[in-house]
Amino acid sequence: MIPEHVLFANDAFYLAFRERDLDAMERLWSRNLPVICIHPGWNPLTSRVEIMASWQAILGNPDAPRVQCYGGRVFQQGDIASVVCYEQLEGGILVATNNFVMEDDEPKLVHHQASDCADPPAPPQESQVIQ
Amino acid sequence: MIPEHVLFANDAFYLAFRERDLDAMERLWSRNLPVICIHPGWNPLTSRVEIMASWQAILGNPDAPRVQCYGGRVFQQGDIASVVCYEQLEGGILVATNNFVMEDDEPKLVHHQASDCADPPAPPQESQVIQ
Repeated sequence: MIPEHVLFANDAFYLAFRERDLDAMERLWSRNLPVICIHPGWNPLTSRVEIMASWQAILGNPDAPRVQCYGGRVFQQGDIASVVCYEQLEGGILVATNNFVMEDDEPKLVHHQASDCADPPAPPQESQVIQ
Repeated sequence: MIPEHVLFANDAFYLAFRERDLDAMERLWSRNLPVICIHPGWNPLTSRVEIMASWQAILGNPDAPRVQCYGGRVFQQGDIASVVCYEQLEGGILVATNNFVMEDDEPKLVHHQASDCADPPAPPQESQVIQ
């Protein structure tokens, strides 16, 4: 996979999150492979139905956090492209893994996991003005 | 990959952890692909050298936690076999992802991430007596 293409899909994931766009979120997740989503502090969700229900609840909640992503790096592991990035929230910064496969000529998510990060790099200045 | 083979490698990972066996830990990680390790609360480690240095520090520390794994499930995502499991420590229970690829006819780790889990399933009775 082309790293820029994967980072674009990763940005699209966080844009869908910020914009509360459930349709975009649904399009971003694989339909052909098992999918895994581990929200911070949650139990693992391991089916597309569970994962989409979680996003419907999160994106429909006005109090859900507004997330900015920065520092994304792509690692090609076989036919998986793994993005490791940081998530800036009001309450702190998390480290996240987002794994993509190619499906219908687009990178699609098969895995998301976000977890605490004690000493993350500082967010870049420009990430604070992204809509 | 055969799920039982992957779960055996996953068990070997936790056995190496418990037994403080750095050689076994080194053999478990891929040498051919980029590797990622996100210990709980740590910044992501994204090179084999960094990751092995972290295991050397952890396994060499007598105060490092003794981890028991339970509830492992395997999800085949393209070339990756992804294990989602729970880690029982003295201080609580984490959820972990361990991703494997086939290398030299063995499942090898390319990714480990452990994070908080608010409401994990109870550990099975037998996991409390594993050495």
